Parts: sequence; C-alpha cells; structure tokens
Amino acid sequence: MKVLVLGAGQLARMMSLAGAPLNINISAYDVNTDAIVHPLTQHKLGTGLANAIADADIITAEFEHIPLAILEQCQQSGKFLPGSDAIQAGGDRRLEKALLGRCSVASANYQVINDEADFKQAVTSLGLPLIFKSALEGYDGKGQWRLKDPAQADMVWRQMADFLAADAKQAIVAEQFIGFNRELSLVAARASNGEVKAYPLTENHHVDGVLSVSLARPVSNTLQAQAEQMFSAIAEELNYVGVLAIEFFDVDGTLLVNEIAPRVHNSGHWTQQGADACQFEQHLRAVTGLPLGNTALLRPTLMINILGEDTIPAAILGLAGLHLHWYGKTKRPGRKMGHINLSADSLAELKAHFAKLIDLLPAIAFPELEQMLNQITD
Amino acid sequence: MKVLVLGAGQLARMMSLAGAPLNINISAYDVNTDAIVHPLTQHKLGTGLANAIADADIITAEFEHIPLAILEQCQQSGKFLPGSDAIQAGGDRRLEKALLGRCSVASANYQVINDEADFKQAVTSLGLPLIFKSALEGYDGKGQWRLKDPAQADMVWRQMADFLAADAKQAIVAEQFIGFNRELSLVAARASNGEVKAYPLTENHHVDGVLSVSLARPVSNTLQAQAEQMFSAIAEELNYVGVLAIEFFDVDGTLLVNEIAPRVHNSGHWTQQGADACQFEQHLRAVTGLPLGNTALLRPTLMINILGEDTIPAAILGLAGLHLHWYGKTKRPGRKMGHINLSADSLAELKAHFAKLIDLLPAIAFPELEQMLNQITD
Repeated sequence: MKVLVLGAGQLARMMSLAGAPLNINISAYDVNTDAIVHPLTQHKLGTGLANAIADADIITAEFEHIPLAILEQCQQSGKFLPGSDAIQAGGDRRLEKALLGRCSVASANYQVINDEADFKQAVTSLGLPLIFKSALEGYDGKGQWRLKDPAQADMVWRQMADFLAADAKQAIVAEQFIGFNRELSLVAARASNGEVKAYPLTENHHVDGVLSVSLARPVSNTLQAQAEQMFSAIAEELNYVGVLAIEFFDVDGTLLVNEIAPRVHNSGHWTQQGADACQFEQHLRAVTGLPLGNTALLRPTLMINILGEDTIPAAILGLAGLHLHWYGKTKRPGRKMGHINLSADSLAELKAHFAKLIDLLPAIAFPELEQMLNQITD
Repeated sequence: MKVLVLGAGQLARMMSLAGAPLNINISAYDVNTDAIVHPLTQHKLGTGLANAIADADIITAEFEHIPLAILEQCQQSGKFLPGSDAIQAGGDRRLEKALLGRCSVASANYQVINDEADFKQAVTSLGLPLIFKSALEGYDGKGQWRLKDPAQADMVWRQMADFLAADAKQAIVAEQFIGFNRELSLVAARASNGEVKAYPLTENHHVDGVLSVSLARPVSNTLQAQAEQMFSAIAEELNYVGVLAIEFFDVDGTLLVNEIAPRVHNSGHWTQQGADACQFEQHLRAVTGLPLGNTALLRPTLMINILGEDTIPAAILGLAGLHLHWYGKTKRPGRKMGHINLSADSLAELKAHFAKLIDLLPAIAFPELEQMLNQITD
C-alpha cells in the first residue's frame, strides 16, 4: 500500500516509521520545495506531484497550511482522506469556527474582523479581554494579539491593520478570553465505516504558546465522554476519516473547543509508548481501511518537546521508560527537533522519574518543567 | 551517528526503524549483491563497501554467514562491533563449540567430523542417538542429519560424505542428542563498559526446525540467573559489545547451550512490544556507546512468525495488543516474511487473545498454533 503525505516534516516521518511494519510505504510532498521525498531519508523520489498522486493508493496530510490548488488537485483524485474540506477547516479559523457552530460544539464566542468597523464591533459586543487570531497560518501562538485594556485598543488595531493589509486573503478572528483551568486535547480516529476510537484526554502545558509537555493519565469518564461526544459531532459533520485532534479549554469541568487539527498532533506523540496503537499507525489504519487499533492507556506517559536543541545528555537514556524521538532536522532556534516520551507503571512513579529527568536536562532549554511537575495532581 | 550493518534483511530493516528516532542512520551492505542500500527502502546508496566502511561511525552485522575477507576488512577499520571473532564464532559450529568449552558453559558433548574415521569414532564415543550439524551455513534446521538406528549409519554417513566432498571448508559437528523439556533463549546486551542487561528468557516453539512462536512471560529467577551467568561468561570471553542471543535446551531445570547468535535474534522480536527498549534499539545503544535501555518485561508477549505468506486477514489488526511487522520482502515458500506480536496484561488474557488470533489465521500457513497454545502452562 502506497500513501502520499502532503508535508514532509516529522509527522510524515513518524507515519513512515509506523507504516513500514504494516507494509505501508510513505512518500511525502514537500510543499516548500515542490519535491516528492521519502520522509525518513529525505531522499528525492524523482517524480512530480501529479505522478505521485497517480501512483498513490491513498493521499493524506500532515499539516493544514497547504495551498488550495494542491488540496483541490488531491481531492479530484478521489484518494484524499480526510479530504480538502477537513484540511481547510483546520487551516482557516473562520471555517473552523463556522464548523463548530454548525456542530453545536461549545467554543469561545467570536467575530471575524476584516476592517476597523469589525474590530470596534467585536470590542463592543464580545467585551474585553479579547484574543485575536489570524484566520490563516496561525499556529504555536504566532499571529496572535491580546487586548485587555481599552486604552490599548488603537495600538492593537494598528498592528492588526498592518497585518491585514499585507495579505488580502487574511482575516482575524476575535474571541472572548476564556479563563480556563487547564488545556486538554483529544486525539481520536474515525474510520470510513463511522467507527470512532479515542485516546484518553491529554493534559497540555504550553510555554509562550508552544506545546512543551503533554501528560496522558487516567482521566474522568465524564470529561472523556464530553470530549468524545464533541469529537463525533465534528468528525461526522466532516465525514472525517483519519486521526483528528481537538484542543479544549477545561473550564471547571466543562469543555470548550479551542481549535481542531485535522491530522496527527503533537499532543498525541505520547501514544508511541503509552498506547497500544500509536496515533501514526492509527491514522494510517483509518485512511487505508484497516481496522482501528486499541487506544486504551497502557501506562501513564508524558511527552516533552525538544525545541531548538539537537543534542541532549545521553544519560537520560538510562532512565527506565524513556524514549527519545529525534526528527533528523537541522537546528534552528525554537524549532521542534524531537521529543521525549516517559512512561511508568503509575502516576507516582512517573512523577518520580520526571523529577530525575528534569535534573538531567539543561534548564535553559527546558523551561518551566519543574512547575509542570508540581502541577501534576495525584 | 552512522551505522553500517553487514546484511540488508529484516534485522537491518528493524534496526533502521529503531535507530531513526535516536538519529542513528543505518546503511546496509547486501552481501549477495555487494551493494550498499538503505535497509528500509532498499534504495541503493551508490557507494562501495570501502567507502561505506570509511563513512560509518560504527559497523555491525545482522547475520553471521559473512565471507571472511569482508569480516577482516571491517575488523581492520577498528569500528566493528561485536567484531570478527564473535561473528565467526556464531557462523562456524566448530568455533562455537570450542568457545563454549573455553567458557565452561554446558552444552551437548560433540565431536568434529571431517572423514569416516571421525564419524565412526563419534558414534562409538558419543553413542546414539546423534545429531549432525554442518559447521558452516547451518540455520533454521538446514544442514542437519539425525542418527538413531545403528543400521542407518552407513546411509547417513554417505549423505554427509557427499556434503563434505562438495565444500572443502565444511565440516560436520556430531552432538549427543539432548532430551529436553523445552527450548529457551536469552537475548541480552553487553555494553563496552562491561554492563550486561538481559531480557527475560523466552520460550521457543519450532516447526520443522524453524522458529514458529516465542513466548515472553514471567520466568523463574533461578533459571534466569543460570542463563545470565552463561551469557556473561560467553560475552566476556568474546569481549562482546552488542546484543547476543543464546539458545538453550531446558533439561529438567538445567540449561545447556544449543547455539549462540552474535546479533539480534528472531526470538527477541517480541521485545518490540513486550519490553521498554526493544532488542534493535538495545543493540544500537550498545554499539554506539549509549546507555543500555530497560529490559524488564512490560507485558506477557508472544511472537508468531509469518512464513511464506505475504497477506494475512486484516481482521487480526482488530485484536487489542496485536502488532503486525512485515519485512517488505518478496514471497517465497517458507521465507520469513514478517511476524505478529501479541501482548496482554496477564498470561490468562494473552492465552485468550491467542485463541482468538488462531481462529482468524489460516491453519495451513500457521501449523501447530493450537498445540502451542495448549502447551502454555499457567
């Protein structure tokens, strides 16, 4: 079975590693260089996108910021899962918020802003504080503005006006600020027959808008059911096939959707060690029509992103239950270079091993881990 | 880190999959075609052996039947682990038996046979029944003869005489027949600092001399200690670095070494799911000087070889704890094409899942599984 992935980054790479044992061979389309490559070796496969589409049994995507013409080309092949609509909904916050509304899934009240009148109306009708997010290309906290103090409205608007002026396709989505207790995400898969299998909700800790740590641990049935109900509503509306991730705000036990990612997701990397079938295998199972795998939590597991570093003390590999996952990428400040998965037989043991790991990691490259450790409640 | 593997089969392939997350890039030397390839994609890397040796940080091997000239070329580079002596000891039964003797490790009494006089003396001094094994290139039950009835001695000798006449380098090793209760194997790693970490003993079931099923389950401390003591004696004698597998006969609780394999081993494939660090990662950790990983049994796991088949009912993927590992090879009768790992939380659950799996597998391609299931004692 041949699967073409749009995007040739770490998610395609990890799909390739998970697919090989199933005899699923992955080629990847590098949107930046317009080349077809092997996502593990980055070796050029010497064929254009049209040939690669013709050659593939199935086409899928590792990210949502893909030019529309390419999405349409893939959609026309009849092989594209989860398909162009789902990818676009993940890549354009206007479409995403409209989708959530259609599904009656709770999320922050919002308004689309194209000009100053929209901006003023948003401030009036939604009230402060507000968060403004670019409709397109926003991720990892990029393209965001906050407004708390009315005195700064003009300054914030001027920044956003410059941003909008630079790209006619852009818009900004204003959202009511949500005072949440924690951020959770659900990674789940829907098969073409409608079957849904969800991993347990994951608790996520961000630093400067970028995911730093995800923790998978036993979770309350009520919260899990709430999340899965929202997943099913969204996935059915999109007739979705594959892995879809949903980020939530947990407000005193009630979930609001922050955003969706129509793909495998950083907050699901823990499944490589903490679950039976990892999200990369699960996505491939779903899109190739194989039965979905077991998503139960095997062991409490946490995932720590490695950002902007290409070396790490080898001693961490001496910790039981630790798995290192490098992405084979060239170092750049803040770049996602790899991640660490740490598993243990119990939450208490996991916390103890996490403490040992923190001692071994350079604090400057891994900020706030100590605080995160202390936030893990029993 | 670049590791060159002698041999480009499934073991190099699985090393490549296990090495990628550690940023260990594997190239493989295909002894049959004299080509350097990527062991996952089989893409030719366009460089000769000499260049590949020069380019590699470390050289290792996935099998022991490697021409001596190549072993020597690798040895001279100073990068070869576990090294030429260890590989040769695994590839020549004369050297292997001499090694076991030097280490005072129990194994069947034996005699090397080069001519009819040797043969007659072996029959007299060792007594019947005897098993005769070719000194070189013997594996998976190939190049073996048995003699139980003295009346058949002439016939067996004539077959062996033809075999010896065909290859001046060959010899035959006669061994006393061991009436064993079961076959076990120990897969363990030794680091360059002498540290040893062993996986739990695995119980192996062969069909027609070829491994069919391996079972990893909690094992008696006494037996495990006995096996590890023998491992250490052999590994220290060879100053071994890497994963080494030892096959044992269990005779009423006393272990005798059947043979050694200076490499990752089919009976260790279960570690991909049943242990923290799998044998492929462990071997790479050992030879590249990284700390050894945890070898404790995470969950009872069994491995079933897929022989001569390139398709399998997809429904098996619906079983919890089941992992399918294809090798991407072209189908040939009896060829090792892949394996299935099946894990569960308890031995009882594993047996129940194994029974379900047996129902889904075609009996003709997977003979004797029912008997193996029934042999699993609580």
